[in-house]
Amino acid sequence: MSESQQPTTTTTQQQVPKEKREKAPKVPKEKKEKEVKDQAKTKEARDKLNTAGVGKEEDFSEWYTNVITRSEMIDYYDISGCYILRPWSYSIWEQIQSFFDGEIKKLGVQNAYFPLLVSEKALNTEEDHIEGFAPEVAWVTKSGKSNLSEPIAIRPTSETIMYPAYKNWIRSHRDLPLKLNQWVNVVRWEFKRPVPFLRSREFLWQEGHTAFATKEEADKEVLQILRLYKRVYEELLAVPVVEGLKSEKEKFAGGLYTSTIEGFIPTNGRAIQAATSHCLGQNFSKMFGIEFEDENNAKALAWQNSWGLTTRTIGVMIMVHGDDKGLVLPPRIAPIQVVVVPLYFKDFDSAILDKKADEVVQRLKEAGIRAHLDNRTNYNPRQKYIHWELKGVPIRVEVGPKDLEKDVVMFCRRDNGVKESVANADLITTAKSTLDNIQVSMLERATKQRNESISIVTQWSDFIPSLDKRHICLVPWCDVPDCEEAIKKRSNEESLKQKEEAEKGFCLTGAAKSLCIPLKVEELRDVPAITNETRCFACERSAKKWTLYGRI
Amino acid sequence: MSESQQPTTTTTQQQVPKEKREKAPKVPKEKKEKEVKDQAKTKEARDKLNTAGVGKEEDFSEWYTNVITRSEMIDYYDISGCYILRPWSYSIWEQIQSFFDGEIKKLGVQNAYFPLLVSEKALNTEEDHIEGFAPEVAWVTKSGKSNLSEPIAIRPTSETIMYPAYKNWIRSHRDLPLKLNQWVNVVRWEFKRPVPFLRSREFLWQEGHTAFATKEEADKEVLQILRLYKRVYEELLAVPVVEGLKSEKEKFAGGLYTSTIEGFIPTNGRAIQAATSHCLGQNFSKMFGIEFEDENNAKALAWQNSWGLTTRTIGVMIMVHGDDKGLVLPPRIAPIQVVVVPLYFKDFDSAILDKKADEVVQRLKEAGIRAHLDNRTNYNPRQKYIHWELKGVPIRVEVGPKDLEKDVVMFCRRDNGVKESVANADLITTAKSTLDNIQVSMLERATKQRNESISIVTQWSDFIPSLDKRHICLVPWCDVPDCEEAIKKRSNEESLKQKEEAEKGFCLTGAAKSLCIPLKVEELRDVPAITNETRCFACERSAKKWTLYGRI
Repeated sequence: MSESQQPTTTTTQQQVPKEKREKAPKVPKEKKEKEVKDQAKTKEARDKLNTAGVGKEEDFSEWYTNVITRSEMIDYYDISGCYILRPWSYSIWEQIQSFFDGEIKKLGVQNAYFPLLVSEKALNTEEDHIEGFAPEVAWVTKSGKSNLSEPIAIRPTSETIMYPAYKNWIRSHRDLPLKLNQWVNVVRWEFKRPVPFLRSREFLWQEGHTAFATKEEADKEVLQILRLYKRVYEELLAVPVVEGLKSEKEKFAGGLYTSTIEGFIPTNGRAIQAATSHCLGQNFSKMFGIEFEDENNAKALAWQNSWGLTTRTIGVMIMVHGDDKGLVLPPRIAPIQVVVVPLYFKDFDSAILDKKADEVVQRLKEAGIRAHLDNRTNYNPRQKYIHWELKGVPIRVEVGPKDLEKDVVMFCRRDNGVKESVANADLITTAKSTLDNIQVSMLERATKQRNESISIVTQWSDFIPSLDKRHICLVPWCDVPDCEEAIKKRSNEESLKQKEEAEKGFCLTGAAKSLCIPLKVEELRDVPAITNETRCFACERSAKKWTLYGRI
Repeated sequence: MSESQQPTTTTTQQQVPKEKREKAPKVPKEKKEKEVKDQAKTKEARDKLNTAGVGKEEDFSEWYTNVITRSEMIDYYDISGCYILRPWSYSIWEQIQSFFDGEIKKLGVQNAYFPLLVSEKALNTEEDHIEGFAPEVAWVTKSGKSNLSEPIAIRPTSETIMYPAYKNWIRSHRDLPLKLNQWVNVVRWEFKRPVPFLRSREFLWQEGHTAFATKEEADKEVLQILRLYKRVYEELLAVPVVEGLKSEKEKFAGGLYTSTIEGFIPTNGRAIQAATSHCLGQNFSKMFGIEFEDENNAKALAWQNSWGLTTRTIGVMIMVHGDDKGLVLPPRIAPIQVVVVPLYFKDFDSAILDKKADEVVQRLKEAGIRAHLDNRTNYNPRQKYIHWELKGVPIRVEVGPKDLEKDVVMFCRRDNGVKESVANADLITTAKSTLDNIQVSMLERATKQRNESISIVTQWSDFIPSLDKRHICLVPWCDVPDCEEAIKKRSNEESLKQKEEAEKGFCLTGAAKSLCIPLKVEELRDVPAITNETRCFACERSAKKWTLYGRI
């Protein structure tokens, strides 16, 4: 990752946050700090202090809204379901783009740009596909004061936009594989309750669309891409995900099969689809006439894939790692990795502290660490701590008069609060190793918590109680669509706790559905192999696969 | 610029073009080559050969369409005015993004993302502004089968989307400057004839929106950004532009003043607005209530700028540099800088040539040069030359049996056709210096041609004849809006040659308007200073400024 791709390294001045709600009170410092401490005991005080305001377990929904707005990730907008991605979140998206874009280019994928708008005719070409998206399509019907001759849709996804061109570009086996990607916005006018990052009416994503001569090549790429998605979550965002296949009912509309990575939010016990990589088979190539002449001059239909990763990534990361103080950002994607705070004291020349703090920041930056100096004079240290904790910066470095004397600085980790005195000579090596440690331990902690939230359920009677413990369930399943429909209906009816929890924002719906059939169930849990004797946990038919079920 | 930001370096395999229209004929090589040469004399033959098809001077409009489609930059789309940007053009946009994004980040600008959609109320906040855009706004009125409660616009630009948020974010002088940018798509449903890249209904751009405490800071940034735009054109695209200010009539709707860079297309004698950087003054901050408390606790309105650069860049570059053979790409933005073609001969082991050619490519790549090996066996060398010339690759390197003997390779420059035998030992240094030379001489050539196309006109009678020579005119002008209106009307009426040329695609309209008041007219031409005695070339009032006028 090059320096220039780390957007915030060179722009720290701009990241000085805009503290609008609190002005520095004009009282002696000692008194101020004590007041702040005492006030923080009431909710109002916490709101005023611009912290997360409520505990994550106390009211998850309010906590999330407070954290994303007060940390300056998101601002609300006057159109419901649309949000403003401020630099603090957008730069995380830039980090994700930089990683993923580099990786797919290594696979031979090229970027392109296809139009935002799609004619009704093109959109309707693949029947199952349009059925899946029709209710969510936004239609343009007017320009200026004139009516358009026919309505034009805003892309909900671009299969039907790209594939008429693919038909023209692909003639011979020499034109294959064709591997294109675009980084764009899409609009899906959902009527479910919108949640910033997780479910918004407009979102940003990349969509890859590839075509191959053989099914083997397509199959292989589906999982290569899925693996990259897993790496985005695990290596960048420190969020564990399960690789698996979607059930027939949950697969992409019009495709052959869908592979998925599934995340988990312990606080509300909900699973969340983290990204999907679809094999479209020959369904779309048949409908769009994407044919090629093979090496024996025979006509054949292309095998196609499509795959997408969205700004949902950021929301999942926030929900998994955030705590009562606010965001906790994994170092690899944190816009600022280290914030340096000089501790001004009465009777001590602040210029000396400023000089030292600035020197620390410069050394960190030279070592490629995204560092920021907070030398604002209108906030006291405690206010600064609260501020940078809210924003989730991985390491805070304090520089005080006593540290100067001892030629040390004080490190404080955001993820676990551990403090450590670090000799100036060790600044860079300790900063690097601490950032690495934080990255690793955040993933470990989240993985442990996720694993502890998986129940193995072999009979229905254990299913709802497990879900109600905010668990997801690994079940032997028959893999029959009717059975999944029945599970969804029955789980919804039997979910008794649902209402209570809904009030605290923990539940969106009580129904459970299949999340995925894990590719490597053994990596999740040591379960017995499915045999001819194994029964489906829900319908008593023969079980086919260990499957993850959960509320979403 | 880092390796990973050069999208095509690692994906050369994907760039193998898809030659669909011509299959390798099954005739002896010598005969084939001769046939090809002979055929190329007729237009049909040139079409079949997949060249530009017509001469640039012969029919500019058809030439442009042929070049952008056959070089695989653009594909047409079933919605008029919307185009597909294929990897060959999109990767040029990525190069522009990479340069400009890096530069604005050095200025402290941060990236963000604001919604695509805007409510009618917000869009209408600034009156002059909405008047400027209203006829071109695309309106969403339905989602699925339901009508929306009120129509929502697709952004034509984002002032009215961003500034309600700016109002909330800016409270104190400490919140300033606020400098945000976004790389997005916008829609302007124009009814003028669309031209790919130059005037499309959807296009890609960056839009920067900044707010300052003082006019001085805003003024300074307007020109800093303009200078960066000039660098994009001159340093990356090798296209000369004139920095200047727009007249009152031509400035951005609702802004205070507009600075611009103006390009010129010699083939049709048209000027083209290359990019603009606007000072909005306090007009928008007044309408949107963007107020801050200054250091003396007094309320003040923010000073704002907005500035944008679009995918038009690519179209201007194509029109300025392209020739009868197709694209001519400046090395800095060429997706492939060097293509290596092994020259297979009968009775010579092609494996030896392949090995040598591959070695050349690897050495070039290791030196950071975007190189590609064309070792396709179903095309002969001449077909390959035509193909890569069409695509505008700056250097072709030929590797033949005789070159092997002499331990040399043959360089052939796309811009001037000059061939040079290069010792293998000098491969890298010569490649680098040749790429640099091409970049420099392309800008020099275009600048010379632009300068020769500027007429100094001090009286009306010389105006239309100069325009008809496909010139732009540097005129002493009174800077009065009514006068500009009159010039536009009169020039349109008097443009006699217009119709004839229009048929060849050279003219879009015969009216002339002001392009800009050059910031440094002395850099363009040695003109006498404007004095009290100087008369406007059109109305005989006192002239204020040397101004560029032209057809657009």
